Amino acid sequence: MTSLNCLTFLSDFGIEDGFVAACHGVAARIAPAVRVIDITHLVPPGDVRRGAAVLAQTVPAMPPAVHVAVVDPGVGTARRAIAVQVSRGIMVGPDNGVLSWAISTLGGARRAVLLTNQALWNHPVSSTFHGRDIFMPVAACLVTGTPLADAGTEIDVADLVTLAPPTSRMLNGEAEGEVLSVDRFGNVQLSIPAPAATELGIRLGSSVLIRCNRRELTAPYLETFGSAAPGELIAFTDSAGLISLAVSNGNAAETLSLPPGARVRIAAASA
Amino acid sequence: MTSLNCLTFLSDFGIEDGFVAACHGVAARIAPAVRVIDITHLVPPGDVRRGAAVLAQTVPAMPPAVHVAVVDPGVGTARRAIAVQVSRGIMVGPDNGVLSWAISTLGGARRAVLLTNQALWNHPVSSTFHGRDIFMPVAACLVTGTPLADAGTEIDVADLVTLAPPTSRMLNGEAEGEVLSVDRFGNVQLSIPAPAATELGIRLGSSVLIRCNRRELTAPYLETFGSAAPGELIAFTDSAGLISLAVSNGNAAETLSLPPGARVRIAAASA
Amino acid sequence: MTSLNCLTFLSDFGIEDGFVAACHGVAARIAPAVRVIDITHLVPPGDVRRGAAVLAQTVPAMPPAVHVAVVDPGVGTARRAIAVQVSRGIMVGPDNGVLSWAISTLGGARRAVLLTNQALWNHPVSSTFHGRDIFMPVAACLVTGTPLADAGTEIDVADLVTLAPPTSRMLNGEAEGEVLSVDRFGNVQLSIPAPAATELGIRLGSSVLIRCNRRELTAPYLETFGSAAPGELIAFTDSAGLISLAVSNGNAAETLSLPPGARVRIAAASA
Repeated sequence: MTSLNCLTFLSDFGIEDGFVAACHGVAARIAPAVRVIDITHLVPPGDVRRGAAVLAQTVPAMPPAVHVAVVDPGVGTARRAIAVQVSRGIMVGPDNGVLSWAISTLGGARRAVLLTNQALWNHPVSSTFHGRDIFMPVAACLVTGTPLADAGTEIDVADLVTLAPPTSRMLNGEAEGEVLSVDRFGNVQLSIPAPAATELGIRLGSSVLIRCNRRELTAPYLETFGSAAPGELIAFTDSAGLISLAVSNGNAAETLSLPPGARVRIAAASA
Repeated sequence: MTSLNCLTFLSDFGIEDGFVAACHGVAARIAPAVRVIDITHLVPPGDVRRGAAVLAQTVPAMPPAVHVAVVDPGVGTARRAIAVQVSRGIMVGPDNGVLSWAISTLGGARRAVLLTNQALWNHPVSSTFHGRDIFMPVAACLVTGTPLADAGTEIDVADLVTLAPPTSRMLNGEAEGEVLSVDRFGNVQLSIPAPAATELGIRLGSSVLIRCNRRELTAPYLETFGSAAPGELIAFTDSAGLISLAVSNGNAAETLSLPPGARVRIAAASA
Repeated sequence: MTSLNCLTFLSDFGIEDGFVAACHGVAARIAPAVRVIDITHLVPPGDVRRGAAVLAQTVPAMPPAVHVAVVDPGVGTARRAIAVQVSRGIMVGPDNGVLSWAISTLGGARRAVLLTNQALWNHPVSSTFHGRDIFMPVAACLVTGTPLADAGTEIDVADLVTLAPPTSRMLNGEAEGEVLSVDRFGNVQLSIPAPAATELGIRLGSSVLIRCNRRELTAPYLETFGSAAPGELIAFTDSAGLISLAVSNGNAAETLSLPPGARVRIAAASA
């Protein structure tokens, strides 16, 4: 197996302690020449779904890499530790679904192993910090060319834990989805993919009917929020290919009271 | 054109999402051997002036580099995307002024191009994420030796958008300026350069009269806040060469109610 | 002296300004091939004790390195600037104790110098930003092979400022300690090392009596919080080898009102 040159790292460890740095240190000891890219470490503690969403939306921009994701409320219990071969790299983390959407985005799992080879771990192994002691050292070995099979026992990829994908469905001329994430700008990303707009007859410049929180609003469907008037609500296709809502120079999530998970329906507004 | 070895990156993207990491991924794909230094990604959303100030104060410490700055409320509109040759590198970003103070600090613009060569971009290009799809891939090409002229059409450097510099003026034996920034310690950086103190007859150890918020205060002009008594208000020359106010072991911005943009006047206190 | 390949960097500079990046720039100019690992820059401003604790708990995971730590409320005063040789690297920072616990963790100081050789500094030297102008440029020279003796005058390691270690003592069948840190998950790390539990007859699965804030609580001593019921208070040995308290899926520090510094006593609960 050829070596890769990049590790990416996502967690819910926060950045006020030395936890992230300890993992970087372990990586530097095993793979000193490899670049490490932090995706984010501010996933809300234990929020596997949020971790999965950020990871899936970010990995397409990465070079071939070993991707480590540790959002792991079950650390130290019987949940499995896995490494999964995908088309352009390897995903490493707990088998709780945090990797599952990124695996899909990258074309699906080709092979998977349980991380059972303790020779690759950092000893003594803490019961509560598998990021430092299992996931990162194994990932650093894999990125420098250790064959996947050396990391542990092969398992059936069909048995990997998969998170239910964000729901989105078409019904009665509407697309219904959920708020997948809210970014720093207050932009509301829906689980509705851009082609649904086309299917509903929504075109650039046409008006979108938005139903949420028992309200109905309309917003123009624009290419970018930069072209809206300050304070105007707009719909657009975001950088991940999903329909999103924004308030120009404002905060759509606050204005519409739409936290992650909230249900939203959209349709073409009648002329 | 010789290649450089360093990219710097400033934005208002925040660090809770994968936006910054996606840009790092793009850079790693094009320029795998180049070091990327994050300046900050916590510029308040859309605050071009704050982004310009942090950038200008930080670039002097950097090695020759391509500097990418994306504070871009007009993303996707007609605002221009530019790359600007300076003495020790190249600045890349939107032509909205965010680069302008750093360009000045680095000796002025020598040449500039519009980023029109789509062959250097990341496709498909999102309408809302030019950091990932235009600025960073172009910068990564430039840092590895792509000639500036290959990035697009040359434009007149006199036509670049320039932010009005923070005002500071001398009048009636006083120097008047504005609060340029407040740092994590609550230190208040004024737009008044240190030589103004000399001009006003203020010396190390002498007393400074400070007028702000319709109040008059005095503070000793010291070399460092470390030499003040706890709770004492002092004036000093900060690490950027600007006159600043601090409260030892305290927060001057809160104590004096001085947010960025507030007007402050200083003079020598009469003996 | 052989060169090292890694610099680590801890400070209280925050990440909203360009201070950390300016130090990275200085390092990149002097040591362009060296990896820099940020430990954290969110030490509360001026909190030397917290900086010392995070540093000491993180350095064991690092490769041989030069470690720079700048929590320096006395910047610009007579406090000394030092570099200290330890078993697997060199510690650089102010002589105010911030390095002292990490030095202990790494086996103690072997030699120390005052940073008096101005030829290694970044000029002009600011009175308020020794991270950029003294500590980081000296560290970058040391990491690339400059002999320690070239950084300044040798001093007696017995004269280095040492922070009083977090107290912990055994008395009357109890171990008494203090809250050393609270992490992002609200887990409460005590200054009581794990062997104290054994000494008190506390075993995995047995019950721990916890006295704090004039309350008495009991909690099972488990291997990991993952095996507890949601909302359950548990005691465990954390990844630094210290006894810690957690609430599964909750926040122990908030639930128990235990900020850093609070006193806690533990004992075996009677059957």
